[in-house]
Amino acid sequence: MNILPNAVSHVIESFERLPGIGAKTAQRLAFYLLHMPQADLDRFSDYIRALKANTVLCDVCKNVTEKTPCQICGDPRRDHSIICLVEQPTDVLSIEKTRAFGGVYHVLHGIIDPLNNIGPDEIYVSDLITRIKKQEPKVKELIFAMNPTMEGEATAMYIQKQLSIINYQLSITRLAHGIPIGGDIEYADEVTLRKALEGRRVY
Amino acid sequence: MNILPNAVSHVIESFERLPGIGAKTAQRLAFYLLHMPQADLDRFSDYIRALKANTVLCDVCKNVTEKTPCQICGDPRRDHSIICLVEQPTDVLSIEKTRAFGGVYHVLHGIIDPLNNIGPDEIYVSDLITRIKKQEPKVKELIFAMNPTMEGEATAMYIQKQLSIINYQLSITRLAHGIPIGGDIEYADEVTLRKALEGRRVY
Repeated sequence: MNILPNAVSHVIESFERLPGIGAKTAQRLAFYLLHMPQADLDRFSDYIRALKANTVLCDVCKNVTEKTPCQICGDPRRDHSIICLVEQPTDVLSIEKTRAFGGVYHVLHGIIDPLNNIGPDEIYVSDLITRIKKQEPKVKELIFAMNPTMEGEATAMYIQKQLSIINYQLSITRLAHGIPIGGDIEYADEVTLRKALEGRRVY
Repeated sequence: MNILPNAVSHVIESFERLPGIGAKTAQRLAFYLLHMPQADLDRFSDYIRALKANTVLCDVCKNVTEKTPCQICGDPRRDHSIICLVEQPTDVLSIEKTRAFGGVYHVLHGIIDPLNNIGPDEIYVSDLITRIKKQEPKVKELIFAMNPTMEGEATAMYIQKQLSIINYQLSITRLAHGIPIGGDIEYADEVTLRKALEGRRVY
């Protein structure tokens, strides 16, 4: 016997489909919504429905935006000769928060991952190559800011190869690896610690 | 500069208002929704809007239900002389899952908590007293299944007093306290351990 009203089950199932939300959390969220005013639920409902309709991908950098080109690509004060390559739109947010980067971005929307059937055509790699080939001003630096995983490495190698095929000269850099601020050397894994040693800098 | 499209910010803010969902999680959920087909978003949107419209509180037990009386209160096979008193509708789900209870429920939708300005009138306490006074068949047992907190105790005492005022005789019980199954005696807090000792049973 299912004693849950269908209206509640439907909301629970919708929440359960989201990443990181299990059965118990979905249930708690649905029952929390039951206590909210209908006006708030209507607004929440409208926002979800309008989410995709009111956003597009920037023609230049493929970031999620209201209009193309996005605010960053359309900003003449940014240095368009430095492209920071990231996996997800949320990575752009994280890097922008540092206020330490004045260049522009390119969002891959994923990473090359053969085990999960994600090849170069499933993400915005060829758009990046075309962009680099055609862009004025010329791209002078490409920063790899993908996550430090096997897939990130594979994607970086693939892009390097594509650039060498079209024989495009630019400097390729990647984010520094090392001990995170506030991190504990005792608990750092050996790969991170080795990277931190190799990348040591004059004090 | 806010580089997030409004459509995305709105969804993030809506998620952030839910319990247990912080800024980072809300952001991750919103960007995940961006990858879902519009049909799924429409359905999610519809479900949230319809949540309250398609549910009511059961006239008898105040549980959330599609129609009143709810499935449990309307079931003649349940023992209506035993009422299990719980704080939230989700507690009913948890107890039903055990298949160990054949009585009926009463949902308080909260707990008496003077520090947070929640008195007996904010929850369904007087409905319980009225129900006990009027119900046929007579209520023989009331099981306190509120959470083992100060507020739960206060609520239990308040209800006992109200029942003694109307001079209604019934047996009042509460859930057993003790070591949870799979729990570790070494790590049990001393109150739980004392309750487990006091409540020890013949092996």
